[in-house]
Amino acid sequence: MATLTVPEVVTSPAEDAEQLRKAFQGWGTNEALIISILAHRNAAQRKLIRQSYAETYGEDLLKSLDKELSSDFERLVLLWTLDPAERDAFLANEATKMLTSNNLVLVEVACTRSSLDLFMVRQAYHARFKKSLEEDVAYHTSGDFRKLLVPLVSSFRYDGDEVNMKLAKSEAKILHEKISEKSYNHDELIRILTTRSKAQLNATLNHYNNEFGNAIDKDLEADPDDEYKKLLRATIECLTYPAKYFEEVLRLAINRLGTDEWALTRVVATRAEVDMERIKEEYYRRNSIPLDRAITKDTSGDYEKMLLTLIGHGDA
Amino acid sequence: MATLTVPEVVTSPAEDAEQLRKAFQGWGTNEALIISILAHRNAAQRKLIRQSYAETYGEDLLKSLDKELSSDFERLVLLWTLDPAERDAFLANEATKMLTSNNLVLVEVACTRSSLDLFMVRQAYHARFKKSLEEDVAYHTSGDFRKLLVPLVSSFRYDGDEVNMKLAKSEAKILHEKISEKSYNHDELIRILTTRSKAQLNATLNHYNNEFGNAIDKDLEADPDDEYKKLLRATIECLTYPAKYFEEVLRLAINRLGTDEWALTRVVATRAEVDMERIKEEYYRRNSIPLDRAITKDTSGDYEKMLLTLIGHGDA
Repeated sequence: MATLTVPEVVTSPAEDAEQLRKAFQGWGTNEALIISILAHRNAAQRKLIRQSYAETYGEDLLKSLDKELSSDFERLVLLWTLDPAERDAFLANEATKMLTSNNLVLVEVACTRSSLDLFMVRQAYHARFKKSLEEDVAYHTSGDFRKLLVPLVSSFRYDGDEVNMKLAKSEAKILHEKISEKSYNHDELIRILTTRSKAQLNATLNHYNNEFGNAIDKDLEADPDDEYKKLLRATIECLTYPAKYFEEVLRLAINRLGTDEWALTRVVATRAEVDMERIKEEYYRRNSIPLDRAITKDTSGDYEKMLLTLIGHGDA
Repeated sequence: MATLTVPEVVTSPAEDAEQLRKAFQGWGTNEALIISILAHRNAAQRKLIRQSYAETYGEDLLKSLDKELSSDFERLVLLWTLDPAERDAFLANEATKMLTSNNLVLVEVACTRSSLDLFMVRQAYHARFKKSLEEDVAYHTSGDFRKLLVPLVSSFRYDGDEVNMKLAKSEAKILHEKISEKSYNHDELIRILTTRSKAQLNATLNHYNNEFGNAIDKDLEADPDDEYKKLLRATIECLTYPAKYFEEVLRLAINRLGTDEWALTRVVATRAEVDMERIKEEYYRRNSIPLDRAITKDTSGDYEKMLLTLIGHGDA
């Protein structure tokens, strides 16, 4: 379900590194060459290119890119080039800082990645920031936000398919009770959402829907100005239906006065190698316009080209 | 600082497995032979023996041991033979169950293991119980206990040596404030204890001691009947001075009417390969009697022999 396309015969990492070096040299940067290489290599290949580049030229490829590129295109290329765990650690760290704080990004990283991938993000966070992810999240949040976010980013959910139906029923009832009472920050509600496996939560929420007549996200929709409730709803969507969640992020990023390039870049860079095909389907279904066309209308230049390449426009 | 002794030339895992099989056969079990092998093999070696045993005899070594042995000796041999991460997962699971519930064990596993070891416990928990550790801990606790224990067992603390002295000072002040107000369950106090690295916490608690005249564990000592406060104190000791914590567990297990074999077994099985030498030093300093002598006075038979072997009595 990835949209990334990799040529059947790939040039060696050393050759790719050499071509990238050439793209940086001379009068002006050759952005098209950069896109033609990096936007057609998977994470393992990009890692080898970075290694080869560092060995040959004594500089981190990311540093060279940072010097040569600028604005939205730069951010997209940098995020894309990073190893997925490093990239998530970087995004999560940014999300804890004052000026770029964005709790939604934390929910996204904590809930749409696999349990093991989230753990690798935490390892990458140690390596890069000399602190733990949960430490920064806890320090920079408080109250209900902290109560929800810290267990989310610390979770290592069981990822098997086993479902306990009795438990699903009893916990659906608890969730319905707490939501009816507007106790959105109740210990039990948070316990269920932050610790249960995705399969188990799915069963619980299906039972909720069947038994109480409404999907849980409908019951949480009422008050769009309540930031905490929005986060709670995002948590549930990320855990149970990530493609729908990402479609919504893209829709809001594109359909507004002034595109939200940060959100657009983040979703494309983090999902092109995962489930962007599914997200594109959801996008078309919900907006009656294909994602590539929506992107073309809203962006331009190398940034547009890189986005379109990553979402597989060449093959569309 | 381990007390485990391994012979310089070790027989092959296949030979060890064969000897163990012999020890189980015939009239009566040869406990001395079991001790002479298992109590002198490190975790990696025991793992190979288990593999070899399963391949050769089509049965898990643990199952055979379970059939042949009984009571305290059995529990000690089984716990010891388990892989450390599996063993901790087993102990933690037991600690969440009604009849054997023991929050102290959870604190011990969460706070005296390295960050990576704790993560491996969480992986072993998935594999064995088809659930997550934090899921069971959250489900079986509530209120303040849950509020402290869930982040402890979910933590992946940064394990570098870097210390931020400014932060140590400000957080020592917060801790002192909350403890003075008897707000032992305050969000900030729990945040600090559950997320900071051990090096950082150490600096914070040293500053606490210097600035406010008392070590924090003294300030938490007042009320020995308060289970939550006891747990808080254990958390701090496990994080900053594990040998002292384990000495205390052993002292309480031995110095009472009727030895607490569960605690004695647990500490010996989990620490013989880690820091039992340090724990023995602490024990002697605090009780003026060497640990091996105290154990000899309180236990007997194969159980006693196995304990003494694991704490390195043969070399004492």
